[in-house]
Amino acid sequence: MGKAYAMVVTEFGAPLEYMEFDKPEPKDGEVLIRVSACGICGSDVHIWKGEDKRSRLPMILGHEGVGIVEALSGAPKIDIMGKTVKEGDLVVWNRGVSCKVCYFCLVKRKCYLCGSRWTYGISKSINDYTYLNGAYASHILLTPETDIILASRAEDLSDDVDPVLLASACCAGTSVACSFEQADVRPGDNVVIQGPGPLGIYSVIFAKESGARNIVVVGGTPQRLAMCADVGATAVIDRNTTTEEQRVEIVRALCDDRGADHVFEMTGAAEAIPEGLRYVAIGGSYISAGIAVDVGDVSVNWFRDVVRKNIRIQGIWVGDAKNTWQALEVYKKYKHILDRMITHRIPLKEAGSALQIMENKEAIKAVLIP
Amino acid sequence: MGKAYAMVVTEFGAPLEYMEFDKPEPKDGEVLIRVSACGICGSDVHIWKGEDKRSRLPMILGHEGVGIVEALSGAPKIDIMGKTVKEGDLVVWNRGVSCKVCYFCLVKRKCYLCGSRWTYGISKSINDYTYLNGAYASHILLTPETDIILASRAEDLSDDVDPVLLASACCAGTSVACSFEQADVRPGDNVVIQGPGPLGIYSVIFAKESGARNIVVVGGTPQRLAMCADVGATAVIDRNTTTEEQRVEIVRALCDDRGADHVFEMTGAAEAIPEGLRYVAIGGSYISAGIAVDVGDVSVNWFRDVVRKNIRIQGIWVGDAKNTWQALEVYKKYKHILDRMITHRIPLKEAGSALQIMENKEAIKAVLIP
Amino acid sequence: MGKAYAMVVTEFGAPLEYMEFDKPEPKDGEVLIRVSACGICGSDVHIWKGEDKRSRLPMILGHEGVGIVEALSGAPKIDIMGKTVKEGDLVVWNRGVSCKVCYFCLVKRKCYLCGSRWTYGISKSINDYTYLNGAYASHILLTPETDIILASRAEDLSDDVDPVLLASACCAGTSVACSFEQADVRPGDNVVIQGPGPLGIYSVIFAKESGARNIVVVGGTPQRLAMCADVGATAVIDRNTTTEEQRVEIVRALCDDRGADHVFEMTGAAEAIPEGLRYVAIGGSYISAGIAVDVGDVSVNWFRDVVRKNIRIQGIWVGDAKNTWQALEVYKKYKHILDRMITHRIPLKEAGSALQIMENKEAIKAVLIP
Amino acid sequence: MGKAYAMVVTEFGAPLEYMEFDKPEPKDGEVLIRVSACGICGSDVHIWKGEDKRSRLPMILGHEGVGIVEALSGAPKIDIMGKTVKEGDLVVWNRGVSCKVCYFCLVKRKCYLCGSRWTYGISKSINDYTYLNGAYASHILLTPETDIILASRAEDLSDDVDPVLLASACCAGTSVACSFEQADVRPGDNVVIQGPGPLGIYSVIFAKESGARNIVVVGGTPQRLAMCADVGATAVIDRNTTTEEQRVEIVRALCDDRGADHVFEMTGAAEAIPEGLRYVAIGGSYISAGIAVDVGDVSVNWFRDVVRKNIRIQGIWVGDAKNTWQALEVYKKYKHILDRMITHRIPLKEAGSALQIMENKEAIKAVLIP
Repeated sequence: MGKAYAMVVTEFGAPLEYMEFDKPEPKDGEVLIRVSACGICGSDVHIWKGEDKRSRLPMILGHEGVGIVEALSGAPKIDIMGKTVKEGDLVVWNRGVSCKVCYFCLVKRKCYLCGSRWTYGISKSINDYTYLNGAYASHILLTPETDIILASRAEDLSDDVDPVLLASACCAGTSVACSFEQADVRPGDNVVIQGPGPLGIYSVIFAKESGARNIVVVGGTPQRLAMCADVGATAVIDRNTTTEEQRVEIVRALCDDRGADHVFEMTGAAEAIPEGLRYVAIGGSYISAGIAVDVGDVSVNWFRDVVRKNIRIQGIWVGDAKNTWQALEVYKKYKHILDRMITHRIPLKEAGSALQIMENKEAIKAVLIP
Repeated sequence: MGKAYAMVVTEFGAPLEYMEFDKPEPKDGEVLIRVSACGICGSDVHIWKGEDKRSRLPMILGHEGVGIVEALSGAPKIDIMGKTVKEGDLVVWNRGVSCKVCYFCLVKRKCYLCGSRWTYGISKSINDYTYLNGAYASHILLTPETDIILASRAEDLSDDVDPVLLASACCAGTSVACSFEQADVRPGDNVVIQGPGPLGIYSVIFAKESGARNIVVVGGTPQRLAMCADVGATAVIDRNTTTEEQRVEIVRALCDDRGADHVFEMTGAAEAIPEGLRYVAIGGSYISAGIAVDVGDVSVNWFRDVVRKNIRIQGIWVGDAKNTWQALEVYKKYKHILDRMITHRIPLKEAGSALQIMENKEAIKAVLIP
Repeated sequence: MGKAYAMVVTEFGAPLEYMEFDKPEPKDGEVLIRVSACGICGSDVHIWKGEDKRSRLPMILGHEGVGIVEALSGAPKIDIMGKTVKEGDLVVWNRGVSCKVCYFCLVKRKCYLCGSRWTYGISKSINDYTYLNGAYASHILLTPETDIILASRAEDLSDDVDPVLLASACCAGTSVACSFEQADVRPGDNVVIQGPGPLGIYSVIFAKESGARNIVVVGGTPQRLAMCADVGATAVIDRNTTTEEQRVEIVRALCDDRGADHVFEMTGAAEAIPEGLRYVAIGGSYISAGIAVDVGDVSVNWFRDVVRKNIRIQGIWVGDAKNTWQALEVYKKYKHILDRMITHRIPLKEAGSALQIMENKEAIKAVLIP
Repeated sequence: MGKAYAMVVTEFGAPLEYMEFDKPEPKDGEVLIRVSACGICGSDVHIWKGEDKRSRLPMILGHEGVGIVEALSGAPKIDIMGKTVKEGDLVVWNRGVSCKVCYFCLVKRKCYLCGSRWTYGISKSINDYTYLNGAYASHILLTPETDIILASRAEDLSDDVDPVLLASACCAGTSVACSFEQADVRPGDNVVIQGPGPLGIYSVIFAKESGARNIVVVGGTPQRLAMCADVGATAVIDRNTTTEEQRVEIVRALCDDRGADHVFEMTGAAEAIPEGLRYVAIGGSYISAGIAVDVGDVSVNWFRDVVRKNIRIQGIWVGDAKNTWQALEVYKKYKHILDRMITHRIPLKEAGSALQIMENKEAIKAVLIP
């Protein structure tokens, strides 16, 4: 039934290799997707270089996939809203697959914390079933257990539905939705966001959608800060033209002279943390979602910055189908602005150079198109 | 109208001085209390030595007071349960007095975070009104704004109502109640407590009252650990006979092979924190209430111990009248056991040597009796 | 020191009477306000007619006051954000005054549930101190215990700061803020609002600010429904052109075929409740804030509409300073639209005919101007 | 491979019929259980009489099963705590099976609200796979999707592990755990429970485990009320010797003169609801879990009992694996008392007369033993 292809990591850090595969036929509830777009996540660079312990070679990267249902099998497949998915529909999916029977899935009711969770494009090699298990590919074969979210019915597809934009919701949007779910921002609260990349831009959007009073973004790239302002930040602070002491003072002044009720760490940089904790108002919270690999120890003045202020710190690890769905909901209201966040649309076969662009931080967000 | 006396700090670290005062007449809503007992808090030692920036000399220590209403003034005084307080009643009071009109009092609804909050026995000198404002004294004069909790009606006083036991609820009990209010322990959760002192003992009680499955206490004093076991700990770990690695392993094994759902830091020691964070299960929480003075920086492996595990850290600063009331509620069920926590009952005039006993950690809990 | 005047209810249901008073001098923390505007609440009509048991004659109506600080007394007065209030500043205030020491204030931390709470313009007669205690007046004298919210510094007053708009936040806005505080609407949730009056319009705004997906308003006045659509409702349903069965079906269809995650009752009509409960999705919530007087019994199919659907019902009684502050925060973002909600600006001396207009439902919102 | 048997409903209301079946061999993740005990739920009587619309004939009743793993198939089966289940282990299971992919499962994260949920012993006929799908049988065949909870390892089975006691946790205990999960009872709160049956007895236990101050049970059967007192109720009220007005007054007096912070409806009787709402204190909550079939309309004074008191009402529909697990946790601490709740142990083949005993309310709890 034809051929599929993928860009495969055969050696960590080496150029990706174009490989062809027999296009598989889905069975027993599997779903075959023709990939429309796949975002390049910052962590793809880490994985490609071999810095993520979960990965085994040879493998296909890509956990921010969006695509068209090419073939279905088994019982009718329903999406998260209870709709039956059909061939030709545009869908996204929860990149992580959990057991749904363990303590974390059933008692904590947080499937993203499941110890058996595995992730498309991260934790399988091409020797593991379903073989086509990353989205740097023309096709991906989803297991029956994968959570599906219908993005557009086949009959509603049009130029107004851009799969490229959806890609950003799958990972960055999901983590941010998960962050806000746990942060509980309420109308009138002051929010500070550290890091103006895709995570930070989504954070501005969620802060707006939560009724925040002031939304302040701290970052080092003027172009990204400008985009944050366009999306809805009420103030931005450039790290290149300020000292830490000044930023602490500016944040305080912008936040009713008491500091931020919620600070969102969306940078990936260890040094952001002690600084960000100083932004937090008494009784506030610090949500840390940006750090995806071990960055070593962080020194915190525990009494002054945690206990005396009675603050809450929340570490955020990925998110689940609910959060991806929330990110898609929010995306719809901002898609004309989010369009500008996608600075690079790159043919899939040039995935190698795309990783380079990400590593050099030339892009805000780059998306591969098969 | 007679004399009152107090043990006064006139010089930091020097012996307390016995001083007599004219006994004041309460006016406009003030309440004059004849002190029945006053707990000696670990932080009294810090204050006495001049390590708490809030304190000014000369001052009267004592924020864990319990006493009899000797005189009332103004409109009828109602307690937290809506009962009118009368002369002869035994009462405790919220040691902190907040403005009740600022952002923290009204919007955050957490009066203990109020920027104007001051504390009996900590933040006033004897030159500040109401002069008799610490409970190392025969009498204390409460301001109209002070929250009162009726402990026993005059007519119900008997040997069964021991003011000495109530003292422990005012500070240690309050902080622990505040910790559990923010921790949300539920039936079936596993709890680990670091530190078997008064805070730790109250934590065991609150863990039991919250339906915890396993309650594990880690500490270095066998006598205190034994008391925790008597109160309800399901296991205790002696720090003297184990290494950190072993403790991490033991906690894990005792907590269903995943670690603790909630770890309560009740030690006051900075080194407890990185170790305690390792006890926390994925998706769990770390509640830090034991540290009351600056203990410097704490190093945390942020990715491994906070982000990857998606944990919550909550700093706890004191508590409010609600928490004192909760502590009193709980105390009633355990008073025969808590009796043993009070290892030293010391005449008020020997307050100086009592501070020494506390500093040498000879007591679990010492209480002064005027 | 000059004269003040008020429109006084001397007999229930009879024309209001113009009365002059000596303008009082504030003392011991009192604040004298020169009223700039006072909203006419739907419940003013009930009070005027003698249907509210709390009221005693002769009395001054008016609990939605906004005004300029004319004179202060006592210690510096700070507002909810910690700012010192000065003469000439424009302020609003919490219309309810609570004891701040009882179970509801301290343990429940919900001052609006306080048993001793009294309300300006509702529960005092002109024989009760502070005499000028309703805002249908040139001046109102606030007690020291009243929570103040600074709306504009004297030096920032301009045409852009319209006191008339602020009036709507004091009561309708407050109740809606309190409703959303207890409802917990999250990005992606579907919201249905029953009743397109001021409460309903504020509900649309709060639903938007909470990230709602669909916001559906059900009502009987096309002009009001149109205003809801302008503010942000994604659909409106006219009760005049539909049956209950149809509305239940339409709501379901508009809400992803499952019904509303949150239904807000903002009508004041008993018959809205059984219908509204049918709108609620399994696992959803029903928030009832519109009913302010006894409307008799309501019949509910308890199994079908409450238990089987596992829904939550939340009754809402008024709100507190936090909620008024939140309403003001939200108002700022929508003031150009809210301007249209104020259909009638009426001179204070015509308060009697203004009540008539409200009773006849000719206005969406009417505001008195001294 | 031998024979299994079941007591089958072949006609609603008619005597159950003994039937033999070929004992099935589990495949692809199925688990064959040899039933040790099966509780008779009050709703079994309704189902047997044909009052539950979900049921189709011929069917096997029994949703409170406990049993020994007789045969396993497919990949290793893990239980809710992550332990691998083996032949000979004693287990319980979540009686409801949900899709785990829909809005209710993934976004609401409450699998018990899933629209596709079906229940062993309720919603399948013996013509539906897995045929042996109710626990009034010697064996039950669990589908791969069924959540399993390990109660005891084969090697730990002893007289101290009584399957009969576990049966009560599967349904009554689960619903009560779900009720308390949503009620949020905290140390110091006052709790009233309507109905002293198995649901009520479990409620007393959960109230104790949540640190409740007063636990008051209202009921009509002295023997059951006495058992509630033994388990931990601080007061009981007999409906036979009091009027509604008296009960409202007594509850108020027992609950600090304000009423109950949480009332749990565990009766199944419509008339309990208006009365129970009167018990609720201002700001309190009413949790309704006892009603399992349509009992018609209930009249509520909405203003007085819901809105003015700002109360919360929560309907409770069943529960999920988490709640069953919590019930088992709690059961362990009280099993010597719960033993007395099981007033009847009846051979499975006498299931028909057992239903009669339940209908006549002769038993507190009856359990069938194959």
